[in-house]
Order: sequence, then structure tokens, then C-alpha cells
Amino acid sequence: MTEFGLIDYVAKLFQGVSHHGWESIGDDCTVLPIGGGEVLVVTTDMLQEGVHFLCHATSARELGGKSLAVNLSDVAAMGVKPVATLLSLALPAECCDEWAKEFVEGFHSLATEYDVALVGGDTTSSQSGVSINVVAIGRGRAECVKRRSAARVGDVIYVGGELGGSALGLKDILQGSVDSDYAALHRNPRPQVELGQWLGTRAEVHAMMDISDGLASDLCHILKLSHCGAQLEVNAIPAAGGDIETAVCGGEDYKLLFTVESDAAERFESEYREIFQQPIYNIGRITAADEPRICWSEDGVEIYPEWRGFTHF
Amino acid sequence: MTEFGLIDYVAKLFQGVSHHGWESIGDDCTVLPIGGGEVLVVTTDMLQEGVHFLCHATSARELGGKSLAVNLSDVAAMGVKPVATLLSLALPAECCDEWAKEFVEGFHSLATEYDVALVGGDTTSSQSGVSINVVAIGRGRAECVKRRSAARVGDVIYVGGELGGSALGLKDILQGSVDSDYAALHRNPRPQVELGQWLGTRAEVHAMMDISDGLASDLCHILKLSHCGAQLEVNAIPAAGGDIETAVCGGEDYKLLFTVESDAAERFESEYREIFQQPIYNIGRITAADEPRICWSEDGVEIYPEWRGFTHF
Repeated sequence: MTEFGLIDYVAKLFQGVSHHGWESIGDDCTVLPIGGGEVLVVTTDMLQEGVHFLCHATSARELGGKSLAVNLSDVAAMGVKPVATLLSLALPAECCDEWAKEFVEGFHSLATEYDVALVGGDTTSSQSGVSINVVAIGRGRAECVKRRSAARVGDVIYVGGELGGSALGLKDILQGSVDSDYAALHRNPRPQVELGQWLGTRAEVHAMMDISDGLASDLCHILKLSHCGAQLEVNAIPAAGGDIETAVCGGEDYKLLFTVESDAAERFESEYREIFQQPIYNIGRITAADEPRICWSEDGVEIYPEWRGFTHF
Repeated sequence: MTEFGLIDYVAKLFQGVSHHGWESIGDDCTVLPIGGGEVLVVTTDMLQEGVHFLCHATSARELGGKSLAVNLSDVAAMGVKPVATLLSLALPAECCDEWAKEFVEGFHSLATEYDVALVGGDTTSSQSGVSINVVAIGRGRAECVKRRSAARVGDVIYVGGELGGSALGLKDILQGSVDSDYAALHRNPRPQVELGQWLGTRAEVHAMMDISDGLASDLCHILKLSHCGAQLEVNAIPAAGGDIETAVCGGEDYKLLFTVESDAAERFESEYREIFQQPIYNIGRITAADEPRICWSEDGVEIYPEWRGFTHF
């Protein structure tokens, strides 16, 4: 059973159970209206030693930061501010007190930077390997919430920064170059929390998510839920090291991917540049299509690459 | 570093970070006021193969149910209704599709019974051993929330059912008797969700928690946070199989432990019996004390047993 096979099975099982107001619609987070025009959004991610990280290739401090970062990125992708987190930690006996302390210091450092409270958690022992589960909770106005299902035909597609750097870093690490710039990027992802909140306030921003499994794979989630296709120009994609295939297929970049009403795109771009003082990447368009397919072009000429994102088990 | 050592270290680190309205005060759950006089309560628990369960001694279906049950018990102990849950699951390659399906069926079966929605989660692979993290979320009126810190001198102390059965079941399982009644109890705990909600509505109920680490250990959390002591009568404790030491020290019973205003105790007991049609166990009194100490008596005569609850790593 693939990861998505199990999720589908679970979703089908739970169809009959009351949702108690929670909205679970295939987004980065689930959404709960709490009155006063506000919502909470909640997400969770589990990280396993040997699957998501290698203890010899990352410091405990970096791992603590990264395990929070990936969850803050999911909250940011909903367009609201992350406010709280819960941390569960299973540690093997050979994991010393110093390691545990450094892990929570890294976690704390990122939480402080993004003003996120630790409001709960669990610690336990593990028979083998470190296991981490983080929950992140965001809070904001209901009208700010951006959903994957909201892309419209004609929307301009943007990404919030360079892609592929994290995957290049992982290659470096696996080849023994643990000190490269890309390796550091892979170990210390920066969730686009401020950008996500700003995008939440813009009505011309329609669909949004963060790129964790690769642009090609993640854009397809938007296309599937929005019942449309996309046309992407590969030379417009900001590829780390000029490596377009890794930019498209590599995971763990945690950059925001979003679509903007075409009429508003020009003004949007100029305000974005003024506020964030950094480039913005218009990589293509949402198109009318019967299936969630991406059409690729290079300098305007259609091409047919065989690119796919990655999947866990 | 013990489990509580790490938690203290984390709590100290996070003292300076804004809580954004979340109240984290050593209870089973953290509490968030959401307006309209309502609160959410949130708890999380991590279960590791070889530490919390043995795959050869429990079915996947039972494990799915138990992993939700222990979290619903935490919500019930706050006095509110569990409404939602998130499930993270890391599965090793040797764990077949059938096992995963049965696990989520067991989880779903308990969720349906208690009317709890699955609103999120994560699935991933594991290099060794099953790792499970469950979050449970409750919702209710702010005035129903019961805290460990609310016991008052003179309160009568009650438990919601027989104690020690789960620990006797674990002994049976470890000795190879996996089919005993106590073993079934150990694998299929029943959270006191209905009772917890009813106790939440009663103003005469002061402090409450669920017993997961054993009566002696857990009562001390109430005593510590309420700045008082307790006097317990061992012959009043409903001990499974008449085994008083296991009833006092064994973990995982998931029965509610609560204190009631002494003036209201008689009326409270009779209403309880009328509604739940089952016995209620008055096991002692909250006393004035400088330290969170339990004094034990047997038929009114003071005794000095050396009993303690268990601790993970």
C-alpha cells in the first residue's frame, strides 16, 4: 500500500463520522471555524530516523529546528499565522541527554524566531531510532485561508523562491559533502511564514500550498482539487545551480506555490517586490483541462520531459 | 535525563515565548479559549513498538483502538467531549497492508463509538518498529474544564472504576497468557468519556485527571499542583483481583480520579449511582500538607507501604 493508498482507505472509512465543524479537504492543514470570524488550522508531520534524517549527517540542533520548520511551512501555506506547537519525541537509550537538550534548543530557537508557543507534547523511549512528531496550529481570519482547490483557469502560477537546493544538498550529504551550502540548506529549511501571512490577506491569491514533495508532484495536488491543468515554462523556474530536473522533482524546498488572478498579477508583483525586496517567480498559467496535467514548454516550445516528484513508502 | 527532566528543561526554555492564549499548566491537556465561552483542549501521546506494545501480543485492530483510547481518556479527564483526532503512523517495510488496514479499522471503530472525527495525520515508513502518534482535541464550555490544580482540603477523593486490571493483564501477557480477561482489558482500555463529560458539568467536582501511570503516582500530580496532601484507605480502593499493590502502582487503567467538595459528596454519590447504575469508589480525603504526600491507612490504622507508580525511560 502506498502512502496515498493508506490515506484514501482511512478517508473512506471515516466518511460516515461527524466532522464536528472541521474541514478536511486535502489541504496542508485541517480548518476549524472557532467563531468571531476566526479559524484554527492544524497540521502534523512525523519524522523518522533513517527515513527523513540521518543522525550522523545532521546535528540535533538542526534537526530540532527542521522538525518545526516543516510544520510551520504547512501553516504558512494556509495563509495564517502559526501560534502553537506540540512536540512528541521518542529517543533510544543510546541517545544521550546532550542530544535531547540540543534538539529541543534547536526547536525552541525556531519557535522563538517565529513566535510560536509550545503547548504540549510527549516524551518516551524508543527501542531503535529517533522518532519525532510535531503538530503546528495556526490562527487567523477565515477569509485569509487559502485552499489547494481554489485555482482558477487563467491564474498566474508563482513560487516563493529557488527550488531544488534542498535536494542538491541531500545529494551532497549522501556523497559525503556534509558542509556544502546546499547541505546546510537541506538541514535548515526556512519556512515562508511572513510571506504566507501576507498572501493570506490578498484576495487575488487563489490557491496555495508549500512545496515539500517537489514542484511537479505538489502542483498536481492543486490541479486535481481545482479541476484544471497547468502550463509551465521551464526557463522561468528558479532552479538552484541551474539544475532544472532537481528543481522540478526534488523535495523539501518548503517554498510557497500559489496562483494569482491574472488581471491583478501586475499590481500584485510590484507590491510584492516593494514589500519583500526580492524577486518573484512567475512560472506559468493555470489552464482548462479534463485531467490534472502539467504541460511543459522551453522558451515557448512544448517539451515532454519525464519528471515526477518523490514519494515515501 | 528522565522523562520529567526533559519536560522540565523544555518548559523552562519556553518560558519567555508568548503563549497566544494557550494555557499549559501540567494538565492532561492544554486549553485554548476560543470565544463564546468555549474552549478547545488538546493532548498528544506517542506509542512505540517494544516500549508501549508488543506486536506479537496485541492485534493491529486492538492497537488502533488503544492508541486512540488513551488520548480520549486525557480529554475526558478535562471534563469535555472529544471531537477530533489526528493520527501519525510510521510503519516498517515488513508491516503488511493488512496490518495497516486492521490498525486503522480499530482506530475507526473506537472513533465512531465515541463520535470523534479524524481531521488529519501523517503516514510514513520506519526503518524499524511501528511508531504511532495520536492527537485528540476536545471542545466544551470553559466552566466545565477540570484542572489538576483545583483540589481543596477536605475534598473526597474518588476513582471511576476498578484499578490494576491492566497491569495484571500485562503480567499475564508477559507470562504467555495472552487470552486472559485481564490481558484483554490491557489491550482494550475503555476511556471514561461519558463520565468525564458528566463530571465536567458538576461544580462540586474540583480536580480531575485520568490514571495512566498508577494511582499513587498520578494522585501526586494533583497534590503537587493543588498544594495539599491526601489520606487514602487501602481497603476502599477497588483492586482488581484483590491485588492492592498492583491497583496502587500499576499503569494504564485509564479510570478517572477526581475530588469532590465534601458537603456535596452525599448528593453527588446518589446522583452518580442513579445515572450510571454502577458503584462509585470513595477512597479518601484531600488533607492540608506542606508537601504532596499520600498517607495510607488500612481499616483506619496508619500504614507505611513503599509504593510508587511507574515511569517511562
